[in-house]
Amino acid sequence: MSERSAGFFDGMFDRTLLNLRRAWRDIAESARSAMGAPLRPDLPREDRERLREQMRTCLDGRGGEVSARARAAELGRSYLALSATGRKWFLRVLAESFDLDREEVDACCTRLLQASQGERPAAERALRKALEPPRVKLLTQFNALPEGVKFLVDMRAELMRLSREDAVLAGLEQDLKSLLASWFDIGFLELHRINWEAPAALLEKLMAYEAVHEIRGWTDLKNRLEPDRRCFAFFHPSLPGEPLIFVEVALVEGLATAVQPLLLRDRDEKAQRERAVRADTAIFYSISNCQEGLRGVSFGNFLIKQVVEELKAELPHLTRFSTLSPVPSFRRWLEQRAASDVDDLLRADESAALRRAAGAADGDDAGGVLLSLLKRETWWENSEAVEALRRPLVRLCALHLTSPAGAGRATDPVARFHLGNGARLERINWLGNIAPRGIKESFGFMVNYLYDPDAIEANHEAFARNGTVMRSPAIDALLGAAPAAVAAGRSRSRLH
Amino acid sequence: MSERSAGFFDGMFDRTLLNLRRAWRDIAESARSAMGAPLRPDLPREDRERLREQMRTCLDGRGGEVSARARAAELGRSYLALSATGRKWFLRVLAESFDLDREEVDACCTRLLQASQGERPAAERALRKALEPPRVKLLTQFNALPEGVKFLVDMRAELMRLSREDAVLAGLEQDLKSLLASWFDIGFLELHRINWEAPAALLEKLMAYEAVHEIRGWTDLKNRLEPDRRCFAFFHPSLPGEPLIFVEVALVEGLATAVQPLLLRDRDEKAQRERAVRADTAIFYSISNCQEGLRGVSFGNFLIKQVVEELKAELPHLTRFSTLSPVPSFRRWLEQRAASDVDDLLRADESAALRRAAGAADGDDAGGVLLSLLKRETWWENSEAVEALRRPLVRLCALHLTSPAGAGRATDPVARFHLGNGARLERINWLGNIAPRGIKESFGFMVNYLYDPDAIEANHEAFARNGTVMRSPAIDALLGAAPAAVAAGRSRSRLH
Amino acid sequence: MSERSAGFFDGMFDRTLLNLRRAWRDIAESARSAMGAPLRPDLPREDRERLREQMRTCLDGRGGEVSARARAAELGRSYLALSATGRKWFLRVLAESFDLDREEVDACCTRLLQASQGERPAAERALRKALEPPRVKLLTQFNALPEGVKFLVDMRAELMRLSREDAVLAGLEQDLKSLLASWFDIGFLELHRINWEAPAALLEKLMAYEAVHEIRGWTDLKNRLEPDRRCFAFFHPSLPGEPLIFVEVALVEGLATAVQPLLLRDRDEKAQRERAVRADTAIFYSISNCQEGLRGVSFGNFLIKQVVEELKAELPHLTRFSTLSPVPSFRRWLEQRAASDVDDLLRADESAALRRAAGAADGDDAGGVLLSLLKRETWWENSEAVEALRRPLVRLCALHLTSPAGAGRATDPVARFHLGNGARLERINWLGNIAPRGIKESFGFMVNYLYDPDAIEANHEAFARNGTVMRSPAIDALLGAAPAAVAAGRSRSRLH
Amino acid sequence: MSERSAGFFDGMFDRTLLNLRRAWRDIAESARSAMGAPLRPDLPREDRERLREQMRTCLDGRGGEVSARARAAELGRSYLALSATGRKWFLRVLAESFDLDREEVDACCTRLLQASQGERPAAERALRKALEPPRVKLLTQFNALPEGVKFLVDMRAELMRLSREDAVLAGLEQDLKSLLASWFDIGFLELHRINWEAPAALLEKLMAYEAVHEIRGWTDLKNRLEPDRRCFAFFHPSLPGEPLIFVEVALVEGLATAVQPLLLRDRDEKAQRERAVRADTAIFYSISNCQEGLRGVSFGNFLIKQVVEELKAELPHLTRFSTLSPVPSFRRWLEQRAASDVDDLLRADESAALRRAAGAADGDDAGGVLLSLLKRETWWENSEAVEALRRPLVRLCALHLTSPAGAGRATDPVARFHLGNGARLERINWLGNIAPRGIKESFGFMVNYLYDPDAIEANHEAFARNGTVMRSPAIDALLGAAPAAVAAGRSRSRLH
Repeated sequence: MSERSAGFFDGMFDRTLLNLRRAWRDIAESARSAMGAPLRPDLPREDRERLREQMRTCLDGRGGEVSARARAAELGRSYLALSATGRKWFLRVLAESFDLDREEVDACCTRLLQASQGERPAAERALRKALEPPRVKLLTQFNALPEGVKFLVDMRAELMRLSREDAVLAGLEQDLKSLLASWFDIGFLELHRINWEAPAALLEKLMAYEAVHEIRGWTDLKNRLEPDRRCFAFFHPSLPGEPLIFVEVALVEGLATAVQPLLLRDRDEKAQRERAVRADTAIFYSISNCQEGLRGVSFGNFLIKQVVEELKAELPHLTRFSTLSPVPSFRRWLEQRAASDVDDLLRADESAALRRAAGAADGDDAGGVLLSLLKRETWWENSEAVEALRRPLVRLCALHLTSPAGAGRATDPVARFHLGNGARLERINWLGNIAPRGIKESFGFMVNYLYDPDAIEANHEAFARNGTVMRSPAIDALLGAAPAAVAAGRSRSRLH
Repeated sequence: MSERSAGFFDGMFDRTLLNLRRAWRDIAESARSAMGAPLRPDLPREDRERLREQMRTCLDGRGGEVSARARAAELGRSYLALSATGRKWFLRVLAESFDLDREEVDACCTRLLQASQGERPAAERALRKALEPPRVKLLTQFNALPEGVKFLVDMRAELMRLSREDAVLAGLEQDLKSLLASWFDIGFLELHRINWEAPAALLEKLMAYEAVHEIRGWTDLKNRLEPDRRCFAFFHPSLPGEPLIFVEVALVEGLATAVQPLLLRDRDEKAQRERAVRADTAIFYSISNCQEGLRGVSFGNFLIKQVVEELKAELPHLTRFSTLSPVPSFRRWLEQRAASDVDDLLRADESAALRRAAGAADGDDAGGVLLSLLKRETWWENSEAVEALRRPLVRLCALHLTSPAGAGRATDPVARFHLGNGARLERINWLGNIAPRGIKESFGFMVNYLYDPDAIEANHEAFARNGTVMRSPAIDALLGAAPAAVAAGRSRSRLH
Repeated sequence: MSERSAGFFDGMFDRTLLNLRRAWRDIAESARSAMGAPLRPDLPREDRERLREQMRTCLDGRGGEVSARARAAELGRSYLALSATGRKWFLRVLAESFDLDREEVDACCTRLLQASQGERPAAERALRKALEPPRVKLLTQFNALPEGVKFLVDMRAELMRLSREDAVLAGLEQDLKSLLASWFDIGFLELHRINWEAPAALLEKLMAYEAVHEIRGWTDLKNRLEPDRRCFAFFHPSLPGEPLIFVEVALVEGLATAVQPLLLRDRDEKAQRERAVRADTAIFYSISNCQEGLRGVSFGNFLIKQVVEELKAELPHLTRFSTLSPVPSFRRWLEQRAASDVDDLLRADESAALRRAAGAADGDDAGGVLLSLLKRETWWENSEAVEALRRPLVRLCALHLTSPAGAGRATDPVARFHLGNGARLERINWLGNIAPRGIKESFGFMVNYLYDPDAIEANHEAFARNGTVMRSPAIDALLGAAPAAVAAGRSRSRLH
Repeated sequence: MSERSAGFFDGMFDRTLLNLRRAWRDIAESARSAMGAPLRPDLPREDRERLREQMRTCLDGRGGEVSARARAAELGRSYLALSATGRKWFLRVLAESFDLDREEVDACCTRLLQASQGERPAAERALRKALEPPRVKLLTQFNALPEGVKFLVDMRAELMRLSREDAVLAGLEQDLKSLLASWFDIGFLELHRINWEAPAALLEKLMAYEAVHEIRGWTDLKNRLEPDRRCFAFFHPSLPGEPLIFVEVALVEGLATAVQPLLLRDRDEKAQRERAVRADTAIFYSISNCQEGLRGVSFGNFLIKQVVEELKAELPHLTRFSTLSPVPSFRRWLEQRAASDVDDLLRADESAALRRAAGAADGDDAGGVLLSLLKRETWWENSEAVEALRRPLVRLCALHLTSPAGAGRATDPVARFHLGNGARLERINWLGNIAPRGIKESFGFMVNYLYDPDAIEANHEAFARNGTVMRSPAIDALLGAAPAAVAAGRSRSRLH
């Protein structure tokens, strides 16, 4: 009877999986000793020249490619041990001393301009090569670190911060962005569903990364992963356990119009299961980017559309896919408008009602009254104020969200994202978020953007080419009695 | 940055893993219908304009990025359905109609040459962008196909073939190579050990890809995966189940000098296990690249070094890591030398012995006699011939392998690879491979290249900078009585 | 009790899975040295007493339970190293020296018979304990061996063989059967689909275990795992990689009536995929038990019914689930009948046709003629013979399969299995298997037994209680013109 | 290019894993409808007869084994929906109506007593069968429920509770215990390491099951899973995700003598890692059984020994394996002793010191003074009291733990467990646990029991056979100046 490892095939390959990273580590280990004493965190003068020399060694390929890469890994390790000052100096050396050879670039340009037809391909290749700064090779080599890709993503986050005040670093930051954009091509991403069976280490990260509706501890998190909820994230094979972006979805009957009821949960698992079965609508109520260092490498639109496909496959009875989104620009917009063109802003009956609710005099400026009402403490719990505010605020929010801002643009950043993805503006919900942040940014407004798979392309085109904000009849109705200026805007922005 | 075991997640999520590819497929499904009737395999005239138009649509981003990518996937699917003629036409359109805008490139060059210091960064960015042909974007988008990366790897194999006779395609081929080189950076590869528990579908591929010592069916394959054997391969996360390169290793006592004993096995598993425990040497006896389309994207040196690390970790009693490699250039080299400078080639006693063995007259040209002996059927089974041939052939093979060919070069391609990786020439084994191919290419020679982790860097440097072939004392001894010309060569090629 | 997907954990922990068996091995290691020199394979006298002593030590719990079990493991290891003679002696000692204490049993019986109402529970417990032979404890302890459960399964296979001629071992064999029956309760089994992605080591076992239609190498095996085929097996968590029973299924259009077309395949994977999509019928064409040592622990009926459920879930368009099964008892039955009651057996026109085909005289015994035709070489390729044989043979096979044999019994073992599972006799196919074994056993007959989920219970009851063979109208039609004796049988065996 | 499922081989089998439980569910579904309307939770009269009938149907095998088992599953499902009253009634029916057939048992006994030698085996088999109550078959069938084994484990917990006051249920409870003991044989358990990468759902259970040192939320839990901690649990393949027992281990330098420092952690992961590397001692500071329904099926001794093996393999520099355990019986023992035989209990100097610390009169009963000091609030923070108490308490605790209680027995249950496993009493730490429970039960005492793999068997034997408490020289020293009575005890309990 032969010896056979227990454990069976589920982990079939896990058992033979060899830890590539371990090999790197060993190689790096020997590289480390070859590189001499570790750099001191703040890079005193005598360390600096050594650092520069080490970078040079990585790039000249001495000792073969494997060794070079091991040295680069070691260099990356040094970087991690540096102080803030040391890191900045490190990055500046990388940016300056391993930038393009500008003379070489110019020479290549000149040669290309003079090249014959037959010489062009070679001349183009040469120029393209000259335009690739040596530092890119070094950046690439860093991925031999145990968590090299994460290292680079975090380095870019640091570079974005630093390059705001240090233009020298901007080029390096751009190089790194290009590199990451190629590696993080959407085709390489993996979509995973996350539930309460996921590793605690991962769930802990979701709590840290949630950017829209704060997760207040493990109980709140568990609420968001229960049977009538879904959570999906994109991962990259080189960043195991590290989400890139994730979205939280509630399965409900009818369009959910307020956030708080979604977050406050009863714990009856059976009821939740049944709700999931009855649900006709998936509400995307939170979407958070996790990696600062991947800003500008866009995943959100892919995530939403793929999650729609997943949900359709799992739960064929779902017929509606919608967000429940904030209007972060609304407060500022309203305050500016109220201060300037009040006559246009409010209708006479609205103004009168506001003055009554505020106990203001007839002649008081209606815009000012409006704003003053909205400055009162917990105004949203005062039913009289709410009554008077509702009509004008809802109408103005609709106006704000549908105002033309040019092709592919919208006045609100969240609107721009979803409209640009091909969603349509479906419904405007006042007091849909009465958390402090919701009140502060949006006077409590939450908006449903509807993703209708069959209309996405046309919606996108209308918005991208003409800035047309596709919207539901309900939104049209809200705008119905709009003042002339708005009507004009509407006639321009509506697609028929 | 905390240490975390790589590859943790791959298994963890299998149950919640969502099939990203499925989503793509669904999206592609709808893209397909939007694209009208399928193209006919040989692309008659009316289809060609449609194809060109489809490519254009992929690149103009109409309907949003997700849709564009879905359309590209659909286009890739069309490509797969085309005939050879259709494919060639497809690739030519891609190469020609979506190449650089040369006027734009020239304009950017001119602007760059005239740019002030402050304007340079922007001008460089513009030029770099102008140098990126639109077809690269389309190639990238193809990875949205269910097996998009494999699709592109295979497309490059096709392009390499076609571009030999159609220069128009060479640029496209180069673009694709760059793209693949970035994606297949060594940092993204995963090393797996392959054994008899591996999926049959994978093992079947090993049989197909083995390029050195043919695997003659499942029994032979199983022999190579038994307890005193190891097999390792590199994989890429986007090519699941598809090896990129693999190496076969035998665990033996002492340096293995012949292939056939390694391949002919007894089936006593217990004995094998014990051999593995006693072994002091790992023999790398076969290394095969699997993906024609990744030619020029080098993995072999990394593979060998990482497998050395793995084996050291698993079997600490291993003290020697060596290849058993062919000398594929030897026959041709010998024939040329024998035809030209025979006087130098053979020593008098060698010539005499050869003439005796061949029954040739004293005056017969010794080189001709040598070659004529090697043309006889199954000469290697004739003990008299073998006796006479041994000394001159071994000496000449040593001479051949140590002859200088310039920095980083060697006269034999296999030697170039291993010496370039930092191995040293350890031992020359005559009749180490008496399979027909071994006899034909190398007159039966097999060579051990030794990988000594501590010497790899220095060996590499010596070879890369001066063409010095590092070698064992035994090889020196073989060359000891060499004629003057050889001694000279030797003095140039030896490092002391 | 919440719903949770079974099997979740198996993968999850692969990385943190600790090798329990390793710990055992280490413990066993120390037990081994404690037990002194290994036993010699054929157990010479001086080893025998030592062995007996070792068994005793395992049972007295000396040194604690963990140590006792480690010693048992070591004892099991000794067993594996014994010769056939040594093993037999070992098993006899186990059977005889660690059997029931018969006096204790008798005493317990007596006490029980005299016990008052209140004393009964304790008396029953004592008797039950007395009836459990000590050897059972030792058998249980053997599962601490690295592959302890497999060890016991194989030991039972050996015991079944040996106990045929050595009644002393029969009791031990029965004890072991009970133990295994408890551990292999159907509730612990796992159903897996096996395809070409399965480990080669597992597939190799399928080839060895296939008991119905021999698998002639890897190509034939691959044929049986392609897209229009399915293969399922039961596994037990303690026998990783070791199938208990497996079934091979073909997805076809209409009822498959012959084996050879199922086994001879074109290799067009796309066509296969399409066939799987169009298929309306699943044909179970082979079902093989893998573990001799589990004979009498029944899985087959569970396997078929669960596979039916799996297939319905995966391929909702399947409407028919049927076997294609041999009739292994037919030849013998026919030969006996033909030798005895020929008058009843054949009808006059059938006899005449047979005589014509055989070139026999009018007076020749028709039964003898029939058998003589069936003894000719490759008679099934002779169209005249086939023509004459078809009607009588098909009718007689139907007669054979539907003849009453009592409640829950049938004259054919395969029929008994499927009818007992609730299938109905659907169709009789002559020359459905012309492989040598098919011809030899069944004169080429293959039978479809139909599993109709809605009728299974009723079919089972009818067969189990009255021996009624449920059958299709087509079978009725075959029997329609049956001679009186048969008609009588039919009236008893048909349910209406 | 063929379609291939994304996801790679790690999950190779996960993808083909078929959910056996699903099949059962489907079968159960149809069984359910066959069983008519669901039973009402409190089982009114008309439901009771139906229930009884359903149990009968499960056992008579009607419709075949698969159907019978499906019906049993359905019955189990009914049970889960019953009220407390309904369940009790259900269990009583099961216990009474499906108990042994006592007449049959008696008849078998009689036949056995009269059997000839040759008839005995059959008579024994018959008797054994008669002694197996039908309800056991039904219990077995319940494992066809989706989580059937967990169902049975929980049912036993319920039965243990109920049978305390209802003797009728005791037999059923014992039957169930036997069944579970066979299924949960130690050979089937899997040892897993649990860390922060484990599923949140599992970690949540650890918090609920921890029985020794309460886990106060996720932060505390994470502390216990960090790099210098280990957590191991036993699992059973049929209870995925459900730990049976787990142990928490701290890696430290030197013997840890107090709990609080182990639980209060700094969060410096690097420091923790380094501590793990430097550690020479593994402290088992908490071990908790998780399944009430498996009480009496012992795992703890196996767990500790296997974890010792695991730790030795992972961290070869560990040289000491010890528990840090409470003395839960100490308070009660001391109070009883202090009340009765005070003269023996305390030495004169101890009594004097206690009286001084308590401000008591010279004549006051020293035992009373001792107890009164221990009743003051937060007495352990009063340095004078602590000073006076230390010597007598430590001595008395040593006395308590080493007092003879007979072979294999100890006066303290925790001591009995560890001494019975072969550990030795290593060290007594006063104020090693100042949490309220620690003070209350043990006056703050914590004890180290040392597991020395080489001494375990001998220690076990000494304790099991003679009640000898093996102990360190330090414990001997504590007892050195013991009064005569103790010395006598000691001479009996010490092994030399």
